[in-house]
Amino acid sequence: MKLFLSRTSHESLTDQIFYQLAGRIQTNMISGGEKLPSVRQLSADSGVSFLTIHKAYKKLEQAGMVKSIQGKGVFVERPVRKETFVSAFDWQLAIPGYLTRSSFHSRPKTTYAFDYSAMNPGLLPTMYLADQLKDMLKAEPAILGTYGEVQGDAQTREAFAAYLTTQLGLSASADELIMTTGLHQGIELIAKALIGPGDVVVTEAPTYPGVLDIFMNRGAKVIPIAMDEEGMRADLLAHVAKTYHPKAMYVNPTFQNPTGRSMSARRRKEVLHQAQLHGLFIIEDDSWSELYFDEKPPPKPIKSLDDDGRVLFLKGFSKALAPGIRVGTIFAEGPFKQMLLTAKASSDLGTPLLTQRAVLPFLTSDRMRQHFEKLRVALELRRDKTIAILADSFPSSVSWTIPEGGLNIWLTFPDNVSTMALYEYCLQRDLSFLPGHVCFPYEPPDHHMRLTYSLMSEHDLTEGLQLFAALTNAFLKEKR
Amino acid sequence: MKLFLSRTSHESLTDQIFYQLAGRIQTNMISGGEKLPSVRQLSADSGVSFLTIHKAYKKLEQAGMVKSIQGKGVFVERPVRKETFVSAFDWQLAIPGYLTRSSFHSRPKTTYAFDYSAMNPGLLPTMYLADQLKDMLKAEPAILGTYGEVQGDAQTREAFAAYLTTQLGLSASADELIMTTGLHQGIELIAKALIGPGDVVVTEAPTYPGVLDIFMNRGAKVIPIAMDEEGMRADLLAHVAKTYHPKAMYVNPTFQNPTGRSMSARRRKEVLHQAQLHGLFIIEDDSWSELYFDEKPPPKPIKSLDDDGRVLFLKGFSKALAPGIRVGTIFAEGPFKQMLLTAKASSDLGTPLLTQRAVLPFLTSDRMRQHFEKLRVALELRRDKTIAILADSFPSSVSWTIPEGGLNIWLTFPDNVSTMALYEYCLQRDLSFLPGHVCFPYEPPDHHMRLTYSLMSEHDLTEGLQLFAALTNAFLKEKR
Repeated sequence: MKLFLSRTSHESLTDQIFYQLAGRIQTNMISGGEKLPSVRQLSADSGVSFLTIHKAYKKLEQAGMVKSIQGKGVFVERPVRKETFVSAFDWQLAIPGYLTRSSFHSRPKTTYAFDYSAMNPGLLPTMYLADQLKDMLKAEPAILGTYGEVQGDAQTREAFAAYLTTQLGLSASADELIMTTGLHQGIELIAKALIGPGDVVVTEAPTYPGVLDIFMNRGAKVIPIAMDEEGMRADLLAHVAKTYHPKAMYVNPTFQNPTGRSMSARRRKEVLHQAQLHGLFIIEDDSWSELYFDEKPPPKPIKSLDDDGRVLFLKGFSKALAPGIRVGTIFAEGPFKQMLLTAKASSDLGTPLLTQRAVLPFLTSDRMRQHFEKLRVALELRRDKTIAILADSFPSSVSWTIPEGGLNIWLTFPDNVSTMALYEYCLQRDLSFLPGHVCFPYEPPDHHMRLTYSLMSEHDLTEGLQLFAALTNAFLKEKR
Repeated sequence: MKLFLSRTSHESLTDQIFYQLAGRIQTNMISGGEKLPSVRQLSADSGVSFLTIHKAYKKLEQAGMVKSIQGKGVFVERPVRKETFVSAFDWQLAIPGYLTRSSFHSRPKTTYAFDYSAMNPGLLPTMYLADQLKDMLKAEPAILGTYGEVQGDAQTREAFAAYLTTQLGLSASADELIMTTGLHQGIELIAKALIGPGDVVVTEAPTYPGVLDIFMNRGAKVIPIAMDEEGMRADLLAHVAKTYHPKAMYVNPTFQNPTGRSMSARRRKEVLHQAQLHGLFIIEDDSWSELYFDEKPPPKPIKSLDDDGRVLFLKGFSKALAPGIRVGTIFAEGPFKQMLLTAKASSDLGTPLLTQRAVLPFLTSDRMRQHFEKLRVALELRRDKTIAILADSFPSSVSWTIPEGGLNIWLTFPDNVSTMALYEYCLQRDLSFLPGHVCFPYEPPDHHMRLTYSLMSEHDLTEGLQLFAALTNAFLKEKR
């Protein structure tokens, strides 16, 4: 047996042996019932005197960890199950951590990937962005050598503020924005500043799985609120707000992830009103309100109705513009902004200047509008194709939402069908989707799923949907 | 008075008025002793019946928040101090947050900036990096359109692993690395996975202020351990480890920030040994061990002695290479790596691919070695100049460390001198440094400071040091 011993340590050799053996017994590296090396043997292995080892063994016996049996040896007391695999790293498993819910982030990649809520690379303005970035590096290489401000680059904030104001009907100034490494980080920063153990946060049910991870990893209680055709139900919200005193509400009102539904203008007002009455922050995630399929855009953000800093508005362009760059912003008014700055400094000292400047030319040109127009047409086509194949080839017991924008459709199976089982089944045929249970906290319903139609090429999408219909029909038949 | 009222709300109008007035009274927007509008007035302002307003006022009185005085009106009960400034955002101040210690991150920029621990832009390989990045964008624009892996780009991890192995004497594989947005984020991710309310973390005293923010914002108790000439005192560490059961220790063993001192090889072994005996993780920050001034490099990292995943090793090149890019890595062995991946996914879904690939050509070329050689010469020159001016022109009551590498010198003033007061004094003359108290948690000593000699040009450094000597002499004279 190998021991870590040091003759210059401030611990006696007896204690060094005691602590190490105790640690190995407690972390199961030495199992219950196992015999420790004899005093003679361990002395030979470690170059320590018999007496020292004897003392350490006595100390272990006094601690109730081993039992000495006359003439037979010293045996580990604690009856623990035999581990089949023991490694030097096992002690790490005995350290309590703080991340209670594992993200669904390391799932396998497939050919027919309906699970990644991202854009087909062919739809992204990659060449244009690359050209602009090359020009910028030529004109101003110094951006590589400059730490950005914690709050974010002033020029980029100006451009984002102008975008929010002219395109989304908000009245934002550069000073009220904090640049983030993607929209997701914005939620994380708000949670870090605002949410802690026992705090209550309200979300739509179902919701974006990433926010469940964020809030639950902060120790919060998450209360999911069911939706009707206008969005999060206001009667339930009123009840929860009065009963559980939530600190914040996370909503994704436009083309919601995962359902694709939008909150009505009337419900937006009502939700804001509830937040004002009961002292909640609203965390408004606007991932893709630009991606609408109808003639006219969806209702304005809740933030446009806000006059007391109630709404923390999040915008990001990773998905629609450049996933390899990842730039987002939080629009926050009032003294809470300072807390978010501290959270940002503590997290990473600020988003890299390079990535902020990389989106700048695009944001300030007419290309942005043209790009969104192109995306709208392309996505509407994909949605129509998806709905058509669902209607033609899927069992009649399955229903789905018809999104008016965004990237996702939400499918509902009969109660007794597990979409997690269907997921495992499809994975073997190189096809994947997002099982719905990850969109709920706690005991989640398991008969929904999210289907993303934006990532694959049109050709693969058609092929994938046909395969998916066949697999689903076969799976349901096998089950019967 | 303006009220937010909604006739379609699930709250009665009486309750809506009650909640809003109660909230304003509690958050001091209506002060103690102030008179509420008359029932008639509020009715006129809000279009609500007398009876409804009367009911809401009664409810406030029952809650003990107002008192109705016959013939005079309704007055706010709670005697609160008069605020000189009231804004619509004030309710935010009444929301408890979780960031208890404010970072020193928004300090003013000065001409003679001895406080920013960063490199002079003239010493950075900015042109070369910009050229390489332009070539890469030309050859592979698709990197802008690709989400990186949560763990980090595989090519970049390969290059970092090769660097750690060949240059620092570690044996790292790409699979054991997680890419981060700067080294600082690596500490944050470890804290998020490992540290929570009431947990104990050990640091050197003084230490990097950023880690104090990170650990204290997680609710941890931080125990600073004094250093001697070999580094963190092992006798104190042994005592603290046995008494307070810390979960982790943060050390910056080579050219420590802020003191510039290094831990001896013997002490590195002893510190690792203590961590093994008492079950601690070691978080080893290696910001700049490449920047040594002597012929031979400093002792190898503690990580090089680790054989049970004890040490979480952090490396970043933001400072020495490209602050506008910000790429770092965590080298973690054993099952804890999975926790760090979950923390990374929850934080930002992965570092942008663009920034990872931007450092790749440099890392894999001989330029890296040449660049560090150049930096060593330039920084040694700056250190020598600084020490010479300190010795010539500073009061004899001030002492300092003589760093053998890195960017910082630690100055110690007599006990009765406040470096925070000196800081304020110098700031008015456009000169700044880092007051030492931010490098300690809790009741900190206030007679130290960190002086960074790497940021200014050689010319400004000389001028700045002479100004600083003059200001210090004048300040101490005024004090006397």
